[in-house]
Amino acid sequence: MNSIFKALSDPTRRKIIELLREKDLSAGDISDKFNISKPSISHHLSLLKSSGLIQSERKGQSIIYMLNVTVFQDVVKWFFDVKGGNKHE
Amino acid sequence: MNSIFKALSDPTRRKIIELLREKDLSAGDISDKFNISKPSISHHLSLLKSSGLIQSERKGQSIIYMLNVTVFQDVVKWFFDVKGGNKHE
Repeated sequence: MNSIFKALSDPTRRKIIELLREKDLSAGDISDKFNISKPSISHHLSLLKSSGLIQSERKGQSIIYMLNVTVFQDVVKWFFDVKGGNKHE
Repeated sequence: MNSIFKALSDPTRRKIIELLREKDLSAGDISDKFNISKPSISHHLSLLKSSGLIQSERKGQSIIYMLNVTVFQDVVKWFFDVKGGNKHE
Protein backbone atom coordinates (compact mmCIF):
# COMPACT_ATOMS: atom_id res chain seq x y z
CA MET A 1 0.00 0.00 0.00
CA ASN A 2 2.87 2.42 0.77
CA SER A 3 4.25 2.23 -2.75
CA ILE A 4 0.75 2.53 -4.24
CA PHE A 5 0.04 5.77 -2.41
CA LYS A 6 3.56 7.04 -3.15
CA ALA A 7 2.96 6.30 -6.83
CA LEU A 8 -0.30 8.26 -6.72
CA SER A 9 1.25 11.31 -5.01
CA ASP A 10 2.37 12.77 -8.33
CA PRO A 11 0.05 14.53 -10.83
CA THR A 12 1.79 13.08 -13.92
CA ARG A 13 1.38 9.57 -12.59
CA ARG A 14 -2.29 10.17 -11.72
CA LYS A 15 -2.79 11.52 -15.26
CA ILE A 16 -1.19 8.34 -16.68
CA ILE A 17 -3.63 6.28 -14.60
CA GLU A 18 -6.52 8.38 -15.97
CA LEU A 19 -5.30 7.80 -19.54
CA LEU A 20 -4.96 4.06 -18.99
CA ARG A 21 -8.51 3.86 -17.63
CA GLU A 22 -9.66 4.79 -21.14
CA LYS A 23 -7.51 2.30 -23.00
CA ASP A 24 -4.24 0.38 -22.97
CA LEU A 25 -1.39 2.50 -24.37
CA SER A 26 2.23 2.13 -25.41
CA ALA A 27 4.95 4.22 -23.73
CA GLY A 28 5.08 6.29 -26.93
CA ASP A 29 1.31 6.96 -26.87
CA ILE A 30 1.64 8.04 -23.24
CA SER A 31 4.66 10.28 -23.93
CA ASP A 32 2.72 12.05 -26.69
CA LYS A 33 0.18 13.29 -24.13
CA PHE A 34 2.76 15.11 -22.01
CA ASN A 35 5.35 17.85 -22.43
CA ILE A 36 7.81 15.74 -20.49
CA SER A 37 10.92 13.93 -21.72
CA LYS A 38 10.60 10.24 -22.61
CA PRO A 39 13.09 9.17 -19.91
CA SER A 40 11.03 11.01 -17.34
CA ILE A 41 7.83 9.28 -18.55
CA SER A 42 9.71 5.96 -18.40
CA HIS A 43 10.61 6.69 -14.81
CA HIS A 44 6.97 7.42 -13.93
CA LEU A 45 5.86 4.23 -15.72
CA SER A 46 8.43 2.18 -13.86
CA LEU A 47 7.30 3.57 -10.48
CA LEU A 48 3.66 2.85 -11.36
CA LYS A 49 4.63 -0.65 -12.45
CA SER A 50 6.57 -1.44 -9.30
CA SER A 51 3.62 -0.25 -7.19
CA GLY A 52 1.48 -2.81 -9.04
CA LEU A 53 -1.01 -0.19 -10.27
CA ILE A 54 -0.15 -0.84 -13.91
CA GLN A 55 1.11 -3.82 -15.88
CA SER A 56 2.86 -4.09 -19.21
CA GLU A 57 2.70 -6.63 -21.99
CA ARG A 58 4.76 -6.98 -25.15
CA LYS A 59 2.59 -6.83 -28.28
CA GLY A 60 4.69 -7.21 -31.42
CA GLN A 61 7.22 -4.36 -31.42
CA SER A 62 5.69 -2.34 -28.59
CA ILE A 63 5.18 -2.64 -24.87
CA ILE A 64 1.59 -1.90 -23.95
CA TYR A 65 0.67 -0.53 -20.53
CA MET A 66 -2.64 -1.24 -18.81
CA LEU A 67 -4.27 -0.69 -15.42
CA ASN A 68 -4.05 -3.51 -12.92
CA VAL A 69 -7.69 -3.62 -11.88
CA THR A 70 -7.11 -5.98 -8.92
CA VAL A 71 -4.61 -3.65 -7.23
CA PHE A 72 -6.93 -0.73 -7.89
CA GLN A 73 -9.82 -2.55 -6.21
CA ASP A 74 -7.66 -3.19 -3.13
CA VAL A 75 -7.03 0.52 -2.67
CA VAL A 76 -10.69 1.35 -3.26
CA LYS A 77 -11.59 -1.32 -0.69
CA TRP A 78 -9.35 0.37 1.91
CA PHE A 79 -11.19 3.67 1.36
CA PHE A 80 -14.52 1.93 1.59
CA ASP A 81 -13.66 0.21 4.84
CA VAL A 82 -12.66 3.58 6.29
CA LYS A 83 -15.75 5.32 4.95
CA GLY A 84 -17.95 2.45 6.11
CA GLY A 85 -16.76 2.71 9.69
CA ASN A 86 -17.11 6.46 9.73
CA LYS A 87 -19.43 7.60 12.49
CA HIS A 88 -19.99 10.92 10.72
CA GLU A 89 -22.21 9.32 8.11
CA MET B 1 -4.15 15.51 -3.97
CA ASN B 2 -0.34 15.09 -3.87
CA SER B 3 -0.14 15.75 -0.16
CA ILE B 4 -3.14 13.51 0.51
CA PHE B 5 -1.54 10.54 -1.21
CA LYS B 6 1.82 11.31 0.39
CA ALA B 7 0.10 11.36 3.79
CA LEU B 8 -1.46 7.97 3.06
CA SER B 9 1.83 6.37 1.96
CA ASP B 10 2.77 5.52 5.54
CA PRO B 11 1.28 2.63 7.56
CA THR B 12 1.20 4.57 10.86
CA ARG B 13 -0.74 7.39 9.22
CA ARG B 14 -3.18 4.95 7.60
CA LYS B 15 -3.66 3.31 11.01
CA ILE B 16 -4.41 6.75 12.53
CA ILE B 17 -7.04 7.28 9.81
CA GLU B 18 -8.53 3.87 10.63
CA LEU B 19 -8.70 4.78 14.34
CA LEU B 20 -10.32 8.14 13.62
CA ARG B 21 -12.98 6.49 11.46
CA GLU B 22 -14.20 4.83 14.68
CA LYS B 23 -14.23 7.95 16.80
CA ASP B 24 -12.63 11.33 17.40
CA LEU B 25 -9.51 11.01 19.55
CA SER B 26 -7.01 13.22 21.38
CA ALA B 27 -3.30 13.06 20.52
CA GLY B 28 -2.81 11.18 23.80
CA ASP B 29 -5.49 8.58 22.91
CA ILE B 30 -3.80 8.10 19.54
CA SER B 31 -0.30 7.81 21.05
CA ASP B 32 -1.54 5.09 23.41
CA LYS B 33 -2.35 2.86 20.42
CA PHE B 34 1.23 2.88 19.09
CA ASN B 35 4.70 1.94 20.29
CA ILE B 36 6.01 5.17 18.82
CA SER B 37 7.27 8.29 20.60
CA LYS B 38 4.81 11.14 21.12
CA PRO B 39 6.86 13.58 19.00
CA SER B 40 6.75 11.09 16.15
CA ILE B 41 2.96 10.73 16.49
CA SER B 42 2.72 14.54 16.54
CA HIS B 43 4.66 14.66 13.31
CA HIS B 44 2.32 12.13 11.68
CA LEU B 45 -0.72 14.08 12.93
CA SER B 46 0.67 17.32 11.57
CA LEU B 47 1.29 15.76 8.14
CA LEU B 48 -2.25 14.34 8.11
CA LYS B 49 -3.60 17.71 9.16
CA SER B 50 -1.76 19.65 6.48
CA SER B 51 -3.01 17.20 3.84
CA GLY B 52 -6.54 18.04 4.97
CA LEU B 53 -7.42 14.42 5.76
CA ILE B 54 -7.92 15.19 9.45
CA GLN B 55 -8.97 18.23 11.45
CA SER B 56 -8.45 19.19 15.06
CA GLU B 57 -10.61 21.03 17.55
CA ARG B 58 -9.87 22.22 21.05
CA LYS B 59 -12.24 20.71 23.61
CA GLY B 60 -11.46 21.96 27.10
CA GLN B 61 -7.88 20.96 27.88
CA SER B 62 -7.37 18.63 24.93
CA ILE B 63 -7.09 18.85 21.18
CA ILE B 64 -9.39 16.36 19.53
CA TYR B 65 -8.61 14.94 16.09
CA MET B 66 -11.27 13.83 13.61
CA LEU B 67 -11.52 12.72 9.99
CA ASN B 68 -12.29 15.36 7.39
CA VAL B 69 -15.05 13.56 5.55
CA THR B 70 -15.16 16.04 2.65
CA VAL B 71 -11.51 15.57 1.74
CA PHE B 72 -11.95 11.83 2.05
CA GLN B 73 -14.89 11.90 -0.37
CA ASP B 74 -12.79 13.81 -2.91
CA VAL B 75 -10.16 11.09 -2.95
CA VAL B 76 -12.80 8.36 -3.16
CA LYS B 77 -14.38 10.27 -6.06
CA TRP B 78 -11.07 10.26 -7.95
CA PHE B 79 -10.88 6.47 -7.60
CA PHE B 80 -14.46 6.13 -8.72
CA ASP B 81 -13.95 8.26 -11.79
CA VAL B 82 -10.99 6.08 -12.73
CA LYS B 83 -12.84 2.84 -12.03
CA GLY B 84 -15.93 4.11 -13.86
CA GLY B 85 -13.98 4.78 -17.02
CA ASN B 86 -12.21 1.45 -16.89
CA LYS B 87 -12.85 -0.59 -20.02
CA HIS B 88 -11.86 -3.80 -18.21
CA GLU B 89 -15.13 -3.88 -16.31
